[in-house]
Amino acid sequence: MPKPRPLRIGMLGMGTVGTGVAVLLQNSAHILSHRAGRELQLVKVLVKNPSKTRDTPIHGFKLASSVEDITRDPDIDVVVEVVGGTGWAFDAMAQALANGKDVVTANKAVLATRGGELFDFARSHGRCVAFEASVGGGIPIIGAIQRGLSANRILGIQGILNGTCNYILTRMTDDHLDYPTALKGAQDLGFAEADPTLDVNGTDAAHKLAVLAHLAMDTTLGVDSISRRGIDELDPLDIRFAGELGYTIRLLAEIWCDPDGIISHVSPVLLRKTTPLAQVRGGFNAVRVIGDAVGETLFYGAGAGRMPTASAVVSDLVELASSRDGFMAATSRLWRDSPSPPLLPQDKLRSRYYLRLHVLDRPGVMAEVSGVLASHSISIASVIQHETIDQPNISQVQMVIMTHLAPAGKFLDAVRSLDSLGCVLAKAVHYPVGE
Amino acid sequence: MPKPRPLRIGMLGMGTVGTGVAVLLQNSAHILSHRAGRELQLVKVLVKNPSKTRDTPIHGFKLASSVEDITRDPDIDVVVEVVGGTGWAFDAMAQALANGKDVVTANKAVLATRGGELFDFARSHGRCVAFEASVGGGIPIIGAIQRGLSANRILGIQGILNGTCNYILTRMTDDHLDYPTALKGAQDLGFAEADPTLDVNGTDAAHKLAVLAHLAMDTTLGVDSISRRGIDELDPLDIRFAGELGYTIRLLAEIWCDPDGIISHVSPVLLRKTTPLAQVRGGFNAVRVIGDAVGETLFYGAGAGRMPTASAVVSDLVELASSRDGFMAATSRLWRDSPSPPLLPQDKLRSRYYLRLHVLDRPGVMAEVSGVLASHSISIASVIQHETIDQPNISQVQMVIMTHLAPAGKFLDAVRSLDSLGCVLAKAVHYPVGE
Repeated sequence: MPKPRPLRIGMLGMGTVGTGVAVLLQNSAHILSHRAGRELQLVKVLVKNPSKTRDTPIHGFKLASSVEDITRDPDIDVVVEVVGGTGWAFDAMAQALANGKDVVTANKAVLATRGGELFDFARSHGRCVAFEASVGGGIPIIGAIQRGLSANRILGIQGILNGTCNYILTRMTDDHLDYPTALKGAQDLGFAEADPTLDVNGTDAAHKLAVLAHLAMDTTLGVDSISRRGIDELDPLDIRFAGELGYTIRLLAEIWCDPDGIISHVSPVLLRKTTPLAQVRGGFNAVRVIGDAVGETLFYGAGAGRMPTASAVVSDLVELASSRDGFMAATSRLWRDSPSPPLLPQDKLRSRYYLRLHVLDRPGVMAEVSGVLASHSISIASVIQHETIDQPNISQVQMVIMTHLAPAGKFLDAVRSLDSLGCVLAKAVHYPVGE
Repeated sequence: MPKPRPLRIGMLGMGTVGTGVAVLLQNSAHILSHRAGRELQLVKVLVKNPSKTRDTPIHGFKLASSVEDITRDPDIDVVVEVVGGTGWAFDAMAQALANGKDVVTANKAVLATRGGELFDFARSHGRCVAFEASVGGGIPIIGAIQRGLSANRILGIQGILNGTCNYILTRMTDDHLDYPTALKGAQDLGFAEADPTLDVNGTDAAHKLAVLAHLAMDTTLGVDSISRRGIDELDPLDIRFAGELGYTIRLLAEIWCDPDGIISHVSPVLLRKTTPLAQVRGGFNAVRVIGDAVGETLFYGAGAGRMPTASAVVSDLVELASSRDGFMAATSRLWRDSPSPPLLPQDKLRSRYYLRLHVLDRPGVMAEVSGVLASHSISIASVIQHETIDQPNISQVQMVIMTHLAPAGKFLDAVRSLDSLGCVLAKAVHYPVGE
């Protein structure tokens, strides 16, 4: 039997993930070609800075002189895009598809914001796009939802999808750091970018949620339609109070399928310390998926980093080399204009809530506060009150209230009324409490 | 465009899982055909007892008059085997393959003991075998290892793979039941079979471990080469002592890849209460997979039951309907005669150990016991001693010792020496302590 032709790979980008892909293709060549049924050959790479010294010795491929030098190279079968961003990364992928190459990408931002364009492009050129690395780093969550759980109506997804935020939250919780100090620590260790905005404000998690939601619920969420709160305004005080109540705060990306429609958000959420998601620490990610047939499932692993993300990229390459039919079938179906279930407005979310009020410590305050909540039909589950500041003339306290289940709309109305009370000294702080 | 031909399904067996498959194909027909790109049609089913009243109304298919009525029916594309056992279930699958049908099976026993024969048969007839339902019920662990993590050398797998055992252990731990009472409870609730032998003695977990090991490490383990201890001899006393030491006992199926070879076993293992696997409760399963690139991953979900297992069977059907290339590629590669890494003898396992000795309560006993351990180079990490029985003339105590890491061979030699001491009143009880 003649030796099968190798799969020839061109790669755009040689940063953290790109280096991991090159290392893995080099160091595990034997096992990979055994599994793929043919050799995986990295033939050409576009690097930003060819003269940069790299910490890992990698060889055996050419450096590309331009994007086109890869996307138009007739000797390349598949283009790996690990550049990120929605600008030229998109154009480069479109160009690769138009030139008859399959694409493997880690780019959740492109999928979440321009998935329709990208997949139309792939379809019109008869090529496929694989994207296991786009969500959850090394956790094979894309394949799990798309194939392993394809018999299910997915009822809900709850994910810790941003490792940077989870690392910062873990440090804030365990080491009682404030947000700026924990962020600085994350940056020093390379867990956070120099500009961490898209991570800490919840945008990255929203992009990933949009990708998962599309796979799981056939819905195309505009990223701007996902309500987002990040961790950048989180006060250590709330982590402490949550802890006293038996909860941990995690940045969750959630989507739930109601009979009426779909509701989704990204927000810090209080989770009981004993729940699996509350126990996800440091840079790890986890995704809880609930299906109508399978029930509860949970997928856990490294959410980012060189080798975990490279694991996902290279697994896609192995499959492309051995059987690209699955990717072709997915590409023919995904990000098409199809009727999506309606997206419910945020105020339809029903949740329990954590509410912290900075109030005057004088008689009648509790009556006022509980009166406002009662008038909005918000039922109180528990209250704790901590003294924080004692001044000679004025005494102030932190009052923490846990509510029973309430619709977000009513709860936020109540918060607005509370904020206008004379005894409430600062804007109320509130977070949903997870199931 | 003409409507694509439906995928026509014949099913062998209509027990718990078979009923779930029929229900899911019926109730989720619309979403399944959307995902598969064509209709999934259950055309014929072989039931053991056609006159049996069923609790779920299912219709739309014919009853088969015999196995051949399905395996030789030219109108059937794929045969679902949910009968179990290694006898006629194997023959029926072989016959289906020989007649040009693909096979979807939940049968870990056939895969573990006759995988080579089955896959040779499939290859020689150009058909494929899909088996996501064979391990971990609804958890898509087969696809995860085979595809999502295919870029990795898998270094280790630790799984809670038998829901019946985990249910019994959870009841024994939480409700302080002894083994027979917990087993009876599991049987009353349908969590355990009337004859639970293969579950509780570790055989079922060993079958599943053999399947995962084959996928992950290209090794074909004879099931008899996997050292097995079940939960049927577990004393509630050891669950209690483990709890006092901060550990939970779980039935683990483990395989580890050493530079020298592979080591595997099924055994009750003490796990720190804070580890993810220790927190898997009731009938749930979980699999921890460690890859060289991806690092730590964990997959969690319902390990058995009608709808979770049906979820896995039907997900395989959806994929067969839309793109069977992946299954064909896997079938061409799996359970072939290929050089396996060597299987190391059990005494090469290195572990910490829990050791309980029922000893005379008299001076010098601790010195004797620790002397024996020292002479076998087993180092003691901690000791607790509990008074259990006081009789007028003779006083006896339970001595519990946690060791440091030790090779199983040396540890078992030490245990044999301890058993022969005059002050040791019953055979020593011992379990490995997990990482």
